[in-house]
Amino acid sequence: MNAEIVATGEEIRTGALIDSNSAHIAERLTNNGVAVIRHTSVGDDLENLRTVFSEIGNRADIAVVTGGLGPTADDLTAEAAAKAAGVGLDLDPAALDSVAAFFKARQRTMNAASRKQAYLPEGAECIPNPVGTAPGFRLKIEDCQFYCLPGVPDEMRRMLADAVLQQISKRMGSNQPFYRSRTLSTFGLTESRAFEQLAGFEKAFPQVTLGLQVQFPAVLVKLYASDTRDGQLNEDLAAAVGWVTRKMGHYVLSQQGDPMEKAVGDLLIQKRASLALAESCTGGLLADLLTNVSGSSAYFVFGGVSYSNQAKMDILKVSPETLQRHGAVHEDTAIEMARGARNISHATYGLSTSGIAGPTGGTTDKPVGTVCIGLATPDGATGHRFHFWFGCRSMHKQMFAAAALDVLRRELLGVDPPRF
Amino acid sequence: MNAEIVATGEEIRTGALIDSNSAHIAERLTNNGVAVIRHTSVGDDLENLRTVFSEIGNRADIAVVTGGLGPTADDLTAEAAAKAAGVGLDLDPAALDSVAAFFKARQRTMNAASRKQAYLPEGAECIPNPVGTAPGFRLKIEDCQFYCLPGVPDEMRRMLADAVLQQISKRMGSNQPFYRSRTLSTFGLTESRAFEQLAGFEKAFPQVTLGLQVQFPAVLVKLYASDTRDGQLNEDLAAAVGWVTRKMGHYVLSQQGDPMEKAVGDLLIQKRASLALAESCTGGLLADLLTNVSGSSAYFVFGGVSYSNQAKMDILKVSPETLQRHGAVHEDTAIEMARGARNISHATYGLSTSGIAGPTGGTTDKPVGTVCIGLATPDGATGHRFHFWFGCRSMHKQMFAAAALDVLRRELLGVDPPRF
Repeated sequence: MNAEIVATGEEIRTGALIDSNSAHIAERLTNNGVAVIRHTSVGDDLENLRTVFSEIGNRADIAVVTGGLGPTADDLTAEAAAKAAGVGLDLDPAALDSVAAFFKARQRTMNAASRKQAYLPEGAECIPNPVGTAPGFRLKIEDCQFYCLPGVPDEMRRMLADAVLQQISKRMGSNQPFYRSRTLSTFGLTESRAFEQLAGFEKAFPQVTLGLQVQFPAVLVKLYASDTRDGQLNEDLAAAVGWVTRKMGHYVLSQQGDPMEKAVGDLLIQKRASLALAESCTGGLLADLLTNVSGSSAYFVFGGVSYSNQAKMDILKVSPETLQRHGAVHEDTAIEMARGARNISHATYGLSTSGIAGPTGGTTDKPVGTVCIGLATPDGATGHRFHFWFGCRSMHKQMFAAAALDVLRRELLGVDPPRF
Repeated sequence: MNAEIVATGEEIRTGALIDSNSAHIAERLTNNGVAVIRHTSVGDDLENLRTVFSEIGNRADIAVVTGGLGPTADDLTAEAAAKAAGVGLDLDPAALDSVAAFFKARQRTMNAASRKQAYLPEGAECIPNPVGTAPGFRLKIEDCQFYCLPGVPDEMRRMLADAVLQQISKRMGSNQPFYRSRTLSTFGLTESRAFEQLAGFEKAFPQVTLGLQVQFPAVLVKLYASDTRDGQLNEDLAAAVGWVTRKMGHYVLSQQGDPMEKAVGDLLIQKRASLALAESCTGGLLADLLTNVSGSSAYFVFGGVSYSNQAKMDILKVSPETLQRHGAVHEDTAIEMARGARNISHATYGLSTSGIAGPTGGTTDKPVGTVCIGLATPDGATGHRFHFWFGCRSMHKQMFAAAALDVLRRELLGVDPPRF
């Protein structure tokens, strides 16, 4: 069963608003075994809307439309759907009840503009809106069943879950295919090098679809499988996850698609270890990432962000001699920062970053994109230097933070440090 | 001149990824006087892609495509565009140079998969990619000029700005309508309350379009005006900016649309003042935001992220009595944290956060969403307590950080602290 999604509204057409409704609808349809073929967005233009509805009516089995059901003159979904179906608009008693119930519950009087929302295409079936004023409706245009829902995300989501998906499931009956997916997160290889490592996948698993997705700085490996019987799907996917993990080794952060900070947190919990940070060039991003993980207070003790050399000396106890001899961006300075953070907070591990995120501050020896990372452990300390070439400050900050966490992750796993 | 936008990729089709590229492209095209008519998203399916390209070729003057230019087998944009144009694929010397330059700059060898990216439709003109491996291209399909760009947002944005918009401007010549816009950033009012404050705008400025856009936790006020003559546009917009500022007062962060952290940084520079942070619940996010602003080393001295009470006592010198009497989440604790950060780093101001971001850790007295903020100044210190009700941890962290910066911003402006 093929579906299309339509999002309407001037804000979406002009880019003033990022359309998150279509992704939500697509995900829910996909998880219910419906193949989503195309998403379309158009503005509040009657003729464009009608054209799109007619095209989809001739192409798809199901269409979910979001937006354009409100009380104002630029809400045109009902009129466009009626025109595409070749019918008129009529006051729908069930829709009027839905609107009236909303106002009654709030002890407000229904105004004329709101009454407009109860006019639906002839032959449409009202989909009541339990959380807002605009009722939705179901209407057949050509061979396609249209489900028109409001654009307010909370209302759309509720009506999609309560009414639309149930109707679709019923309609599909025993033909509804099962759909399963797995996501692995990886770090340290570019998308194209990851792809090379996975050569041979299609032959090994013809029944599983492989996709790579950059979620900078991580690369996600996505595995999809679909069948009318559920039995074999989970086994097929588990075997594919094992195969990918063997091919990619320690580049795999998580078989559940977790981000780096969660993978590192899980390892720290396993080892009953704690962590302190000393950040310069990452400016708090490392601490922010680690504390985004719920439960991180179990291992994250302290983070110090020291932009100035004075703060590095006063608070992190970096020696003035080291700073004078090597400057702030150097393995030795990074090691002293990591040791300082570990010592003042009594953590098991200390991790530090010092580098040049840009756009200014680079030199011939230490160009923009250079980062030094220090790791202090119960057994000693190591310093690392990497160089990246991204175009912007925020990408450098993200890459520096991920590289630092990867140094720690590989130490916790007992394998070699990363290379880039 | 009519334009359409196409975003490709399985993640977008299935809803695994929210497509933010289309909104960015739509906004840039609209701002350049191009009318965007339709957005379409399809998966990595050669036949669907070809169909969409052919349809658009017969409908639009310009198409901007994003995604599907990578090195892997499911990157099909070049092949589909070639089929739609009725031509073959050919190794493009300029595209090969672009890919080779990327690898050379990183002292790495180009692999075979990456070489695939240099195969463009015959007759296409390469659009070099200065920040990634995948070159883009320009190609005529039917009567429509297609601009195909990568899906990685940073690469797409750079190539759109550097190459595509310039070519489009040139093509439009003197027919290009003048289009001007201004954006004000505001913080502290919800979108609907901001809209209420701006009642009467349409009557006062019939020639200017007003739009509100939530950029959580800020609300942007967007003002647009368009004309075939440029003369009056800037004056009209300046008057509208003044009107909005009078209505919204100190809720306005910036008349240039700057984020909170930039607005606060500018005020600190004006006052020749410096800042130190003591973060608990915001976990480094405050420091990360502040240091995302280029030049922040002029005023940002030190940030301490202390999740544990021990670190609050040892490093920030919060007294054990205060922690015992009030707990970590309290105005008095926040004041001592702010004072501690200010003292150990000799900064003009110390700012602190302690709260409960959730999902766990809430109590009846201090439910999830509670934040205490401390501000230490040369003249004393103040404590503040706010309560927010968002659904998730990351929204709470963002709101806590913005609220803390707003406490400092209003202190620097000499006005009352915020209320929520």
